[in-house]
Amino acid sequence: MSSKAFAIVAGVGPGTGAAVARKFAASYPVVLMARNPDNYESLVKEINGNGGKAIGISTDVADASSITSAFGKIEKEFGGAGCAAAIFNASGRFVRKPLLDLTEEEFTAGFDVSCKGAFLFSQATLPLLLKSTDSGKYPPTLIFTGATASLKGSAMMSSFATGKFAMRALAQSIAREFAPKGIHVAHAVIDGVIDIPRTKDWLKDMPPEAKISAEAIADSYWYLHTQPKTTFTNELDIRPMLEKW
Amino acid sequence: MSSKAFAIVAGVGPGTGAAVARKFAASYPVVLMARNPDNYESLVKEINGNGGKAIGISTDVADASSITSAFGKIEKEFGGAGCAAAIFNASGRFVRKPLLDLTEEEFTAGFDVSCKGAFLFSQATLPLLLKSTDSGKYPPTLIFTGATASLKGSAMMSSFATGKFAMRALAQSIAREFAPKGIHVAHAVIDGVIDIPRTKDWLKDMPPEAKISAEAIADSYWYLHTQPKTTFTNELDIRPMLEKW
Amino acid sequence: MSSKAFAIVAGVGPGTGAAVARKFAASYPVVLMARNPDNYESLVKEINGNGGKAIGISTDVADASSITSAFGKIEKEFGGAGCAAAIFNASGRFVRKPLLDLTEEEFTAGFDVSCKGAFLFSQATLPLLLKSTDSGKYPPTLIFTGATASLKGSAMMSSFATGKFAMRALAQSIAREFAPKGIHVAHAVIDGVIDIPRTKDWLKDMPPEAKISAEAIADSYWYLHTQPKTTFTNELDIRPMLEKW
Amino acid sequence: MSSKAFAIVAGVGPGTGAAVARKFAASYPVVLMARNPDNYESLVKEINGNGGKAIGISTDVADASSITSAFGKIEKEFGGAGCAAAIFNASGRFVRKPLLDLTEEEFTAGFDVSCKGAFLFSQATLPLLLKSTDSGKYPPTLIFTGATASLKGSAMMSSFATGKFAMRALAQSIAREFAPKGIHVAHAVIDGVIDIPRTKDWLKDMPPEAKISAEAIADSYWYLHTQPKTTFTNELDIRPMLEKW
Repeated sequence: MSSKAFAIVAGVGPGTGAAVARKFAASYPVVLMARNPDNYESLVKEINGNGGKAIGISTDVADASSITSAFGKIEKEFGGAGCAAAIFNASGRFVRKPLLDLTEEEFTAGFDVSCKGAFLFSQATLPLLLKSTDSGKYPPTLIFTGATASLKGSAMMSSFATGKFAMRALAQSIAREFAPKGIHVAHAVIDGVIDIPRTKDWLKDMPPEAKISAEAIADSYWYLHTQPKTTFTNELDIRPMLEKW
Repeated sequence: MSSKAFAIVAGVGPGTGAAVARKFAASYPVVLMARNPDNYESLVKEINGNGGKAIGISTDVADASSITSAFGKIEKEFGGAGCAAAIFNASGRFVRKPLLDLTEEEFTAGFDVSCKGAFLFSQATLPLLLKSTDSGKYPPTLIFTGATASLKGSAMMSSFATGKFAMRALAQSIAREFAPKGIHVAHAVIDGVIDIPRTKDWLKDMPPEAKISAEAIADSYWYLHTQPKTTFTNELDIRPMLEKW
Repeated sequence: MSSKAFAIVAGVGPGTGAAVARKFAASYPVVLMARNPDNYESLVKEINGNGGKAIGISTDVADASSITSAFGKIEKEFGGAGCAAAIFNASGRFVRKPLLDLTEEEFTAGFDVSCKGAFLFSQATLPLLLKSTDSGKYPPTLIFTGATASLKGSAMMSSFATGKFAMRALAQSIAREFAPKGIHVAHAVIDGVIDIPRTKDWLKDMPPEAKISAEAIADSYWYLHTQPKTTFTNELDIRPMLEKW
Repeated sequence: MSSKAFAIVAGVGPGTGAAVARKFAASYPVVLMARNPDNYESLVKEINGNGGKAIGISTDVADASSITSAFGKIEKEFGGAGCAAAIFNASGRFVRKPLLDLTEEEFTAGFDVSCKGAFLFSQATLPLLLKSTDSGKYPPTLIFTGATASLKGSAMMSSFATGKFAMRALAQSIAREFAPKGIHVAHAVIDGVIDIPRTKDWLKDMPPEAKISAEAIADSYWYLHTQPKTTFTNELDIRPMLEKW
C-alpha cells in the first residue's frame, strides 16, 4: 500500500458534491465524477491550484461500461492504491408527475441512477475500499446521499422515491455485508432544500436557516468518515432548523 | 357500469396468488396473470368448474408490451367493466449472493418485477379501478404483496430488498395520489415463510404455526378490500405465531 | 373450559369503544370498562336488551387497585371462563401545550393511562387469554388502540406522544413474548379524526370520507381477532381516504 | 451573556457519561449529575486538575424537587450564564423479566428515568439553552442517549423499551418545538454493548470491534454539537462494526 489512498465523489455538481470534494481533497487525492465535465472542471483546477490533487472523469454511473472505463482510468492513475472514501451523491433526472402520466422511462429514471448507479459504483469501489481496511487513519467509508423521499413515498414522486427507497435498501445490505470486514457504510437522509445556485430563489422570504448548507453536509460526511470501527453510524438525518417535519 | 366488475391477480402460482384468486373468484370474475400458463391453467379450470368465472393470461409484468397485450385481452373480455380489485403478487427471480458476485442483470431482477412490474400493472389497472369508485359494494382496491425485505435490507439480499423497498415507495405514492379519488391502496408485509408446495420441507421440525397460511393471506386481502372509504388500512404486517422478529 | 369465553373492552365511550363493544357482543359476553359509568350504562342496557350479555365495571385502568377490583368482579361473574378478546382503548386526558408550560402531572398523564394502564390491563387479562388458547374459534386476542402520535412526536404533543410511543413498545414486547404461546397481540395506528359526537363539528366543510368510522374500526378489530395462528397481523394503520399523511 | 456558557451531563457513570463529560470539559465548564456522588467525584477532580472546570451535583433526575435543587445550585454557580449543551444520558434500573412477573414499580422504572427524568431535565435546561442561541460558537444542543430498545420492543424488555420509546417521542416533540428557536435537539440510538468496566467480560471471545467505544460516542455527541443551524441531525444510530442488526 505504498501509494496514497484516494477518495471518489460521484455526482459532482455545484452543491453537495462539490462541497464534499473540497472537504475530502484537504486529506486525500480526489476523483470527481459527473456525466458533464462542466460540473467538475473548474473544481478540479481549483483543487489542483490549491495544492491538492484532483482528477475529473466523465462518467454515467447508471451505465456499466462507463463505470468500467472510469475505474480503468482510476487504476491507471492510482494503480495499487486503495480507496479511503467513496461518496455516491448522484441523482437522476427529477420527475414529478401524476402516476398515469409517467412514461416507463421516466418512472425508471429514479432507480437507474439512485439505485442501479449506486450498485455499479459500489461494486467498483468496494474492492478498492477493502484494500484500505488496515492502512489509513480512518476506516474506509462508503456514503450514500438520500433524501426525504428515502423514507416517504409522496404523491407524484414515485420515480424519485422508488429510487431513493431502493438505494437505502442497498446501503443497508452493503453495510450488513461489509461492516464486519471493516468498511463503514452510511446513508444520509437529507431532509430539506440545499442552498445551492439552483435553489437560490426558493424559500426567498425565509431566513438562511431554512436551507441546508452544502458545506455542512460535507462536514457531516467527513465526520462519518472519521468514526472508528467501534462506532459506526449507518444512518443520520440532516435538516435545517426551520424545516417542518 | 352495466357489466360486472372483475378482479385481477398478477403473480399466480401455487401459493398466495392462487389462494387470493380463489377468494376473490367467489365474488368477482377473475383474471389470472402469470408468465407461465402452467401456473394458472388448472386453477382457471377449477374456478370455472365451480360456477365462478376465470380467465388466464400469460403475462410478463415487467414487460410493457406484454402488459399492454394482456389488458387488451381484458378489454375484449370485460369491455366497459371496471375493476373491483387488483392484486400485485408477482415476484422476480430470487437472488441471494454476495454483492461483488452479482451481475447487473441479477441485481436489477428484483426491481424489474417487484417495482417496474408493479408500476406497469398499476398504470394499466388504475383507470379500470377509477371506473368502479361509485359502483360496487366495496371501494376499488389495489394491493401489493411485500415481504420482510420491504423494511430491512439484509446482507446478500440487495436484489430482492431493493425491489421490495421500491415497491413500498410506489404503493405509498399511489395511495397518496389515489386514495382521495376513492381507491384503496394497501401494502402487506409478509414476514415469514408461506406454507406452499415449494416450502414443504422448510422448518420441518416446527409445528404448522411456524408458517403462514396462503389462504389466510387471501382472507386478509379480502378483508382489506371490504374496508369502507372512511377506514383504509395502507399497511399491515403478517407473520405466523412462531416467527421471530 | 365449560364456561363461555368473554371479551373485555377498556375505554368505552361514545366512539370506538362502544362500536367495538357492540361488535364483540354479537359473539361473546362483554365486559365494558370506563371510569365514568355514564360511558357504558346505556350501552350495557342496549346489549342486554338485544339478546347479548354485557356488564359494566367502573375502572380506572391507571390504578392497580381499581384493576384488581375490576378483575375480581369479572372472576365472580365469569369464574373459570377464559377471555377470548381484550381491547385496550383507554386514553388519558389529552394535553396540548408548549413543553415549558406542562406540569409534571400533565406530562405523565399520557403515560399513566396509555402505557401504565395498558400494562396493568395486560397483566390482568393475559392469564385469562392464556386460558383460551386451545378452546375458542379464534386465537385469543389482545388489541391496543394507537394513534398518529404512536409514530410521530409532534410539537406540543409530548404528553400524548410519549404515552402512545410507550404503548407501542409494550404491545411489541407482549407480542414477542406471548405470540409463541398462541395469543394474538395487535396494535392499530388510528391516523385521523374518528367520527364521534365530540368531533361532530370538526372538518365540517369536508365530506364524510374525511373522518374514520368507529364502526369500521370495530370491524377491523374483529377481523384481527379472526386471524388464525399462522397469520397474525401485529400492526396496521387506519385512515380515511381524504386524510393527508 | 458575559459569563461563560457551560455544559451539563446527566447520568455520569464510568462509561458514556464520563467520556462525554471529558469531551465537553475541553471547551466548557461542566456540571456532572448522578444520583451517587461516587459516580462523578473522581472525574470532577480529574477535570479540575487538568485545567478544566467541573462541579458535581447529586441528582435524582426522576424527582422534580431534586432537579429543582440541582438547578438552584447551577444558578448559584453560573448565575446569568447560558447553557451551551445538555446531555441526558441517565438510565434507570434495567429490568428484564416476563411481563407477568413485573411489579408496577419495576415496569414504570424505565419510564420514570428515561422519559419523566428526561422531561424534568429538559424543562430545566431549555430556558438556559435558549439563553445561548445568539452567543456561543455552536447552536445550543440537547442530546438524548437512546438504545436498540428505542426502536424495538423485545420480549422481557417492556420496562426498558417503554421508557426508551417514550424518550424518543419526547426528543422529537422538543426538536419540533425548539429547533425553530435555534436549539439543536438530537437523539442517538446506541445499538450495541458499550465498552465499559461493567461489560468487560461480555463478548469476551470477540475482537474489540464488537463493542462501542464510549469515547467515540462522546466524539459523536461533540460533532452533533458543532453542526450549524442549517444542518441539524435529529437522529443517528451508532453500532460497532461487528454488531448484527
